[in-house]
Amino acid sequence: MASSSKSSAGSASEKAPEGTEVMGAQVIAEALKKQGVEYMFGVVGIPIIEVAFAAQQSQIKYIGMRNEQAASYAASAIGYLTGKPAVCLTVSGPGLVHALGGMANAQVNKWPMIVLAGSSDQPLESMGAFQEFPQVEAARLYSKYAARISSLERVPFFVEKAIRSSIYSPSGVSYLDIPGDIVTSSINTNQVEQVKTLKEPPKPAASVESLGEFFNLLKRSQKPLVVVGKGCSYGFAEEQAKQFIEQFNLPFLATPMGKGTLDDRHPLSVGAARSTALQEADCIILLGARLNWMLHFGKQPRFNPNVKIIQIENDTIELHNNVQSELAIQADLKTVLKQVIEQLLLNENETKWKYDAATQWWSLLRKKLISNKQRSDVR
Amino acid sequence: MASSSKSSAGSASEKAPEGTEVMGAQVIAEALKKQGVEYMFGVVGIPIIEVAFAAQQSQIKYIGMRNEQAASYAASAIGYLTGKPAVCLTVSGPGLVHALGGMANAQVNKWPMIVLAGSSDQPLESMGAFQEFPQVEAARLYSKYAARISSLERVPFFVEKAIRSSIYSPSGVSYLDIPGDIVTSSINTNQVEQVKTLKEPPKPAASVESLGEFFNLLKRSQKPLVVVGKGCSYGFAEEQAKQFIEQFNLPFLATPMGKGTLDDRHPLSVGAARSTALQEADCIILLGARLNWMLHFGKQPRFNPNVKIIQIENDTIELHNNVQSELAIQADLKTVLKQVIEQLLLNENETKWKYDAATQWWSLLRKKLISNKQRSDVR
Amino acid sequence: MASSSKSSAGSASEKAPEGTEVMGAQVIAEALKKQGVEYMFGVVGIPIIEVAFAAQQSQIKYIGMRNEQAASYAASAIGYLTGKPAVCLTVSGPGLVHALGGMANAQVNKWPMIVLAGSSDQPLESMGAFQEFPQVEAARLYSKYAARISSLERVPFFVEKAIRSSIYSPSGVSYLDIPGDIVTSSINTNQVEQVKTLKEPPKPAASVESLGEFFNLLKRSQKPLVVVGKGCSYGFAEEQAKQFIEQFNLPFLATPMGKGTLDDRHPLSVGAARSTALQEADCIILLGARLNWMLHFGKQPRFNPNVKIIQIENDTIELHNNVQSELAIQADLKTVLKQVIEQLLLNENETKWKYDAATQWWSLLRKKLISNKQRSDVR
Amino acid sequence: MASSSKSSAGSASEKAPEGTEVMGAQVIAEALKKQGVEYMFGVVGIPIIEVAFAAQQSQIKYIGMRNEQAASYAASAIGYLTGKPAVCLTVSGPGLVHALGGMANAQVNKWPMIVLAGSSDQPLESMGAFQEFPQVEAARLYSKYAARISSLERVPFFVEKAIRSSIYSPSGVSYLDIPGDIVTSSINTNQVEQVKTLKEPPKPAASVESLGEFFNLLKRSQKPLVVVGKGCSYGFAEEQAKQFIEQFNLPFLATPMGKGTLDDRHPLSVGAARSTALQEADCIILLGARLNWMLHFGKQPRFNPNVKIIQIENDTIELHNNVQSELAIQADLKTVLKQVIEQLLLNENETKWKYDAATQWWSLLRKKLISNKQRSDVR
Repeated sequence: MASSSKSSAGSASEKAPEGTEVMGAQVIAEALKKQGVEYMFGVVGIPIIEVAFAAQQSQIKYIGMRNEQAASYAASAIGYLTGKPAVCLTVSGPGLVHALGGMANAQVNKWPMIVLAGSSDQPLESMGAFQEFPQVEAARLYSKYAARISSLERVPFFVEKAIRSSIYSPSGVSYLDIPGDIVTSSINTNQVEQVKTLKEPPKPAASVESLGEFFNLLKRSQKPLVVVGKGCSYGFAEEQAKQFIEQFNLPFLATPMGKGTLDDRHPLSVGAARSTALQEADCIILLGARLNWMLHFGKQPRFNPNVKIIQIENDTIELHNNVQSELAIQADLKTVLKQVIEQLLLNENETKWKYDAATQWWSLLRKKLISNKQRSDVR
Repeated sequence: MASSSKSSAGSASEKAPEGTEVMGAQVIAEALKKQGVEYMFGVVGIPIIEVAFAAQQSQIKYIGMRNEQAASYAASAIGYLTGKPAVCLTVSGPGLVHALGGMANAQVNKWPMIVLAGSSDQPLESMGAFQEFPQVEAARLYSKYAARISSLERVPFFVEKAIRSSIYSPSGVSYLDIPGDIVTSSINTNQVEQVKTLKEPPKPAASVESLGEFFNLLKRSQKPLVVVGKGCSYGFAEEQAKQFIEQFNLPFLATPMGKGTLDDRHPLSVGAARSTALQEADCIILLGARLNWMLHFGKQPRFNPNVKIIQIENDTIELHNNVQSELAIQADLKTVLKQVIEQLLLNENETKWKYDAATQWWSLLRKKLISNKQRSDVR
Repeated sequence: MASSSKSSAGSASEKAPEGTEVMGAQVIAEALKKQGVEYMFGVVGIPIIEVAFAAQQSQIKYIGMRNEQAASYAASAIGYLTGKPAVCLTVSGPGLVHALGGMANAQVNKWPMIVLAGSSDQPLESMGAFQEFPQVEAARLYSKYAARISSLERVPFFVEKAIRSSIYSPSGVSYLDIPGDIVTSSINTNQVEQVKTLKEPPKPAASVESLGEFFNLLKRSQKPLVVVGKGCSYGFAEEQAKQFIEQFNLPFLATPMGKGTLDDRHPLSVGAARSTALQEADCIILLGARLNWMLHFGKQPRFNPNVKIIQIENDTIELHNNVQSELAIQADLKTVLKQVIEQLLLNENETKWKYDAATQWWSLLRKKLISNKQRSDVR
Repeated sequence: MASSSKSSAGSASEKAPEGTEVMGAQVIAEALKKQGVEYMFGVVGIPIIEVAFAAQQSQIKYIGMRNEQAASYAASAIGYLTGKPAVCLTVSGPGLVHALGGMANAQVNKWPMIVLAGSSDQPLESMGAFQEFPQVEAARLYSKYAARISSLERVPFFVEKAIRSSIYSPSGVSYLDIPGDIVTSSINTNQVEQVKTLKEPPKPAASVESLGEFFNLLKRSQKPLVVVGKGCSYGFAEEQAKQFIEQFNLPFLATPMGKGTLDDRHPLSVGAARSTALQEADCIILLGARLNWMLHFGKQPRFNPNVKIIQIENDTIELHNNVQSELAIQADLKTVLKQVIEQLLLNENETKWKYDAATQWWSLLRKKLISNKQRSDVR
């Protein structure tokens, strides 16, 4: 099987004349390390304990947990915080099923994450092997990519594909099913397919037309509002979001997970007048925020019936969702904010424009902020 | 919708002239109680907290847990121990996903269990509602029956079907998805479809031919062995298993979950000579035990290549699985054991027969028991 | 891989000293033939054309079709008519998807059927190979058993399991996914796992208690009715159904698929008074018929609110479904009818009893038959 | 239910004072028409025949087919050719299952398509209604979006979401499940949620950095090759692809579905020297083509081991897939080609550059074209 695999799917012109014999677990660990994995959370047992050992030897930080549920949430958090997926390592059957919680969370929120679960040996398939379960199918609903690794030669291929799928927009979960016999079998390194280290994900930009429309809508707006979502942080666009808001002198509020991008006590923050701001704004710029239940689906009576929404968002699923946006830019948030800011700084006319601090809108919001503060101080 | 439902699918000639207005949660709780549910394990929250309250008012014992994972395993254990399903009650989204562990365990082991999970309101479907998730599809892999309740009128129908599916052979998990708006809406009791209390599951018997073949195989066997599996306990056949083994003077051993049906120190127990017993027996009678990994798939070199297997088993999936049985009786274990014992007691010739205590087989097993005991005592 | 497979999962004590080299396609065809397959319907192409050739060489009748859809329905009909599954053979991707129609029909109606689909080579998995598709997952919803064959050694194991699952109650569809490289690779016959020819499915019987209750209900009934469903034919119980109806002098009607078991012009047939018979009967004996839409779900106003239903049915899913039966016997239909008839013939008192031809019920039905006949004759 | 739906999820400030009563089928047809649907292919029957009538009244062209399989492929072709989805309309159960073929084709190839299938009435769910089947789950594997419409009020919401999901990148299939009782019930137009007509999908652009890298790679290339895939046609970028190839004087070849974008007899076409071109090129620009089996996975020995791939592709799943690209631009193909051409025309230095017609690469390709032509002429 190895030889037919090589001829049809792989190649290795630069291979050393003599390889060394390595165990499956090591091939897996090294493939993960090569693709940038730094953290692995798991609960060890048959048949994946060797994978944890090998990961440690490959300088991946292994953190043993007491329940795969916690391990999966921990791994998902690393993905959100660093933009690079951590691994959740589990045993077969219940091991994987317990990890579905963190997988669902990561997949729904589009956080990168890799799940590796041991599974029953290939020669025992369909026999009622120890904790045998249709694991790939179990993972499917919670994954962008899910596959059972069927040969040791191709481990680096599967690992690269899993991590690439996990990171590239929309980010999410990749699941790799690892038969026990793959973990413990051995192979000559020369026979292992070589795969390059993954590149940074692409960063699509806004077109000139989109940018023009963006400036048009913003400048004509009487009551603009910026909503800072968790996409600012996940997209490493905190600096640009801050600069954009300050440059234009725009009122903003943050969603719960968007908090921290700018300080809640920032002079431009209107979070303490959230209901009024959402209800009255005539132009809302969503920076990495979705119009789901957290923002009342963008619907009346919580939103102005005539509000014009501007979305900057890489995942087309979110564009115009629930409410039609006036402008939906499919692009990388940081890249677009850079384009916007750069255009302002280059163009003298643009730099002169900023939202007027003396407007009725700012007056209304400030009055509301003060009255809300008084009310909460009383308590 | 209510009226069309009534005309096409239900009717209730014996209804009281005037009903009372009740909340959805109460309709659910009363339907569960009517079908014999005694225990409910769960973690409350939106939108199912009212269901827990109503269950308590209906005299269902509600046990609050800290994680749905534990709640689901607890509910599955009740099902195994009592033969009647307990309910695992969870919130939407992660609440259900956390419960999949116990569901998988119950479904794979064929233990009855009911899972009720709250889910997003029907009018918010597909909008990104709070914790919205394709819950019925998530539950499918772990269920015999899974459905989203789409009207309050039909709650008793869904509950009866769920519990019946859960108990009837092969037992397993039923999942009911409960939209939040169903829980909190109200209905006149007259409009609620009436459903009868579930009957005991049927007990198929062995045919006369099967019984004849059973006696033939057993009497011709030189080296018989009875394997007591967890099906004896789950099938409430402990008494019959004991009587059968003692009546025939047969060597037996128990699987891990079969322990407790007969005492491990019973004079006929050969558990301490397990390897020899399995390897040498020429006729193995499986009482509620499966030939999966726990019994080495019934394969050589752990089993005698000429062994004749007798299976008594209600679930056809297990018959002849991995190894072809000489005789496979699809029937209720307790019913068949009663048939066997009754035939023995009625028939004078039969009662005289019992497996000879002075055989080479018993000598071999006893010798092995003693040597194994000495070895373990030394340690 | 072969060697580890042998040691853990197989055995071969009786093997010939020297085997011969055979191609995968031949191993597949011979395994099918050994398990009793007689017919194969399909559309050939890459990578399964060799399987069709090998099937013909193994004396399986291969019928080439023009669309997998038709092939799948044809195979399902053979399963219904003979009780033994035919094979539907398809290419990968669209080949399988086109066959889902017949699979759905067979699975829902519980007819045995085997689907074999070629699929992409194992070394090309996840690469976007020719017509690559998650075929096992695609088949899952339409199958009792679905698996991807991962080694040539174990082909006979998978085939036996597929056919056994397909035939044993509840009958249905088995799907086997065959990687192209399995079809065209070769193996020494000595390395192929040996599996025995499948046994006839078991025939559970009614217990003494159930039979007693059956006679009680029948004899106390004022207005009995027998409904002959397609289960009589599928269960090869036509002769017994006829004998039972005639012995007791019972009015009967047939469901559309139950027609042909007894002649519609049989003197006891009340098919021409169907509405009245269903609406008025106080005891309905379902012989292999389900209370689904075809029988108005057993609901008022199409049924008598006080009707007592007797079910004889091997699949517990159908027992008490939609309407609670007074008596539900989980057993093989033919076996139970034999028990009933035998008990009548043995027992002198029983033989004397038969349903009185001079009852009001027969008068009503006869009057209705005549008036309905006149009405339809006029047209 | 209607009222709670309105308050939580919809709004209707601009509604007429008095609406008119309309049937569900009409609401469905008008929602489709409003979102731009022009064609509907189907096989009518219960419960969707009324939908076909209503579609015709709404000026949607309805084409009756003889098998849902053909209807589904026809609808998928319209989506590919026009960029706007046609509807495939089917009855319940087998109707939908037969349509899965065209759905699979559309989903795998990312062509927009809408499937509407009738399904059993909501009040009959789980009862074994006519052709009852878990249709949403059956459609899931073949869809970007699949939902069961649960109220008539929200039909326009579901239709807009389905069509938007279908068109927006990556294009694909949307499935809507329509309970029979929804089709035939009626509603006042005032109660129907109003939804705006869908906007054109967004067109992400290449960043300045990406364009710079693009020019760098191209100019340094000794042996460039453009591969014209079906994405040029689907992305309406034929004109730009032609201009780009001609402006730079680049050799090109087309994939089977890419044929027609430029004439095969175009002087720059090297399709007749395909093997050599792929094997020797040191820089391959993929215009809407994937490195799957049709292009030998981009692997040796069919490709130069040192080839540098440039991808322009909106779907991140394809980026770096199987082989790592030197440059992967996630953007709209037409938009990027416009950027490239515009930059060439604006920038004087750039316009001067074009690939030299007197290179060794062109000599080699021309020689191969001639020898291949001679060989095929001989035949």
